[in-house]
This record gives sequence, C-alpha cells and structure tokens, in this order.
Amino acid sequence: MQRYKAIIAYDGTDFFGYQVQPNKRTVQAELEAVLAKMHKGREVKVSASGRTDAGVHAKGQVIHFDSPLLIPDDKWVVALNSLLPDDLSILHVEKVSPSFHARYDAVGKEYRYRLLLSKKRDPFERKFSYRYPYALDLAAMRQASQYVVGQPLDFTSFCSAKTEVVDKVRTIETIDFLLDDDLLTLRFVGNGFLYNMVRILVGTLLEVGSGERSPEDMTAILAKKDRRFAGKTAPPQGLFLWKVFYEKYG
Amino acid sequence: MQRYKAIIAYDGTDFFGYQVQPNKRTVQAELEAVLAKMHKGREVKVSASGRTDAGVHAKGQVIHFDSPLLIPDDKWVVALNSLLPDDLSILHVEKVSPSFHARYDAVGKEYRYRLLLSKKRDPFERKFSYRYPYALDLAAMRQASQYVVGQPLDFTSFCSAKTEVVDKVRTIETIDFLLDDDLLTLRFVGNGFLYNMVRILVGTLLEVGSGERSPEDMTAILAKKDRRFAGKTAPPQGLFLWKVFYEKYG
Repeated sequence: MQRYKAIIAYDGTDFFGYQVQPNKRTVQAELEAVLAKMHKGREVKVSASGRTDAGVHAKGQVIHFDSPLLIPDDKWVVALNSLLPDDLSILHVEKVSPSFHARYDAVGKEYRYRLLLSKKRDPFERKFSYRYPYALDLAAMRQASQYVVGQPLDFTSFCSAKTEVVDKVRTIETIDFLLDDDLLTLRFVGNGFLYNMVRILVGTLLEVGSGERSPEDMTAILAKKDRRFAGKTAPPQGLFLWKVFYEKYG
Repeated sequence: MQRYKAIIAYDGTDFFGYQVQPNKRTVQAELEAVLAKMHKGREVKVSASGRTDAGVHAKGQVIHFDSPLLIPDDKWVVALNSLLPDDLSILHVEKVSPSFHARYDAVGKEYRYRLLLSKKRDPFERKFSYRYPYALDLAAMRQASQYVVGQPLDFTSFCSAKTEVVDKVRTIETIDFLLDDDLLTLRFVGNGFLYNMVRILVGTLLEVGSGERSPEDMTAILAKKDRRFAGKTAPPQGLFLWKVFYEKYG
C-alpha cells in the first residue's frame, strides 16, 4: 500500500460540508465514490486536515488516502479530475510516508474570510463573500484583532458550544486586513482553529467595527470562556480554507 | 410617464439568456415580472442595449423602461433589488429623456472574454471562464487581432449565420490582452458587435494561438464573408458584457 497526500479545492456552495453524512452530497463522499470507482468498488477511506461546514469553500484543503495502485503523481491528478464533479478539483497529488496524516501532522492553517462592503448586491460575489452594507471602523477592528493574536489563548468563547475537543487553547499568528476596493479580506493564520472559530471571530469583529462593542471587549469575551458572550457566527459563504501547513509557517 | 435608464449586472449561469422566451427563465422576464409587481400587475416593457445568450454574463448591461411612478433614483435601486433574485442586480437607475433608447442610442460596447490557461480545473472559475489547457502563442494572437481592429470591416464571417441584421460592418477599436497569472482576459471595445461575434473572434484567435491558423488568415476569413471560414464559437461562460457607451468611448 502507498499513502498519497492530495491538495484539493472546492466550491462549497452545493456541498453539505466536507464530512460524509447519510443521503447528503459531501466532499468526502464524492472523493470516496471516485476512489472506489478507481479501485473496482473497493472502499478507500479519505482523511482530511479537518472538516469544513456546508457552504464553506476550500482553495487548499489537504487529504490523504492509501492505495495499492502505483500511478505517477500527475496521472492521479488527471484520473481523479476526470471522474470528479466540476465543483471539486484535485490540484496536486504526491506519495508520502505511511506515517503521514493530513490532520495530525498539520502544524498550521490559513483561512480567509471575504466581506463585500457594499450597499449594492454583486451577482458574482453572492456565493463567495458576505455582503456587509453598513459603515465599519476598520481601525477598531484591527485593534480588536490584536487582542487575540500572538500568544496561546483559550478560545472557548469563540467556538461552537457543540465542539467536542477538550483543549481549546490555540495560537493565532496573524489576522491581516486586505482591503481591495469594496472587498475586505480577513486572513487568519494560526496553529489550529476550533469549530466555527473563524466565523465567530469575524462576527465579533464586525460588531466591533459597527460600534456595538469596543476593541477591548475581546479580552473580556476570552475570559468568559462561554460562547454566548462572543458575537454572531458570520455566514459560511465568505469563508475559505486557504492552506494547510505541515512545516513551519507564518 | 417618466423614462428610466438602469445599469444591471447578472450571473448568466442560470438564465436562458437575456430575452423573453416562453417557459424559460430569462433576465428580461425577471425584470418585467418585478416591474409588474411594482405597478399593481400592469405590464412594463423593458428594452436592453442588446441580447445576451444563455450562460453569458453582464457586469454593465443597460436597459430602459417607462413608469408613472416618481421614485427617487436610489430608491428604485433598493426597491427593484429587494424583489429581484440574487443572480440579477440593479447597479444604478436614473431619469432620462423620453427619447432615450438603450439600444438605438448606444454608440459602443465593451465585452470581456476570460480564458483560464491551466491544465488544472478551478472550481471557482468554471462558470466564469473558458479553460484552455493547451499551449498558446500569445504574440500570434495579438498579431491576428490587429487585422480586425481600427477600421470599419464587414464581419459577416464572424457572426452567426442566424443573424438578422443586414449591415454587418462594425468597427472594433481595440482588442486588449490582459494576462494575470493563468487568466487571460481579452477586452473588446467597438461601436457594435454582431450575434456571437466576440465568441467567434475568440474561437478563431485560439486557433491562431494553437498554430492551426496563421495571423494573416484573419484577412482571408473577413474577405470570404461566410461564417464557415472562421473558427469555432467559444463557449458562453467566458463572456461578459462589460459596459455600454452612450457617449464617446475608447
């Protein structure tokens, strides 16, 4: 058996998220169906760096799987893409050691959240950004973001109450603000992100930007260790899993 | 009655083109349905600068309509958008003279055609570009484009044989080539474009770029005045009606 690592991209619009669910179209189910086809019906289990929710996109999700097939890396890309639907694409395949694990070996991730700061709807952005038509104080948002970066912090308040993981300490290295015309991209790089963490951070930063909260509130919210004290969860279509790091990052 | 001019944008993916057709979802039908709703069921006819085909997008299509309602321009935008589906958006409304006509007064148009020059599928580009995975000689394509710009020419060979207009002489001012990473955008500006003209020009330029034809063939194709001598019609999803000019342009 050979273990393969693959980088994949998907438009999350028409998927019920990454993970297999009964009777739902998911990314994992599409991948496993195509791999089964390539292995004469034999089940091939796919493991990802982490789940993504319904409507969330990926530009650089990482998966691994084992196969007895010895196909050159670039031929895997062609073969898989020829069978996959066109909202899911294999960008890269490489042979890795049998000890490689897409989830356990990840040392960091980059997510991006796209906000369209416009009173006008844009038909081309509706599935790939969250439109926020109200005034925003970007300086206050930048200041607020500094309270949650640069050191290990307990993000219990910034993750879904449904989260199963016990250790909720994560380190966000940077939150960058990239403003291009009326499109604001928030770029999050860190050693790990809890369930809904980026979307709750974005929702809370928006409440700072609109003046409902002050930047300093971020510290008080962290201290509460209670989801109910943070802001709303921003909608899924603005979120992209951009990159997964397996070596040094930042 | 007041005549209104509006600039609209649409993602053409889920429309059977601009023009009303029985039992099909079209841009014009959606607009007229919403205007009828705003006028207590009374029919309001919408005229556009021109049709777009199924799958073709618009960033700046122009329409006009007449209404007895005296609503401030920005309130028209809000009212129409609140009723329209989210793949069709009103960008701008303004009062115009009753003699204004979206089609007859247009003095020029800009179209853009987006080509993804990549062997890899991109789930985020599949509806908004034509993926061309083969080698292209851009210099030859640029050279070929020069044979069809800058003077009035008979584009009979470069329009659908179904075209009803008699006068097929048009002037293309410029064809610009904008290469950004693996995305090639061809920008066409001219005083008018015949049915399928941009898509046939793109298809023919691709045949020059791939070496199947030489740049000088463009002149021979024009001289034939016969659609069968030009190249294939490039697919619709790469095409955007970008702007309609009512004054000097270029």
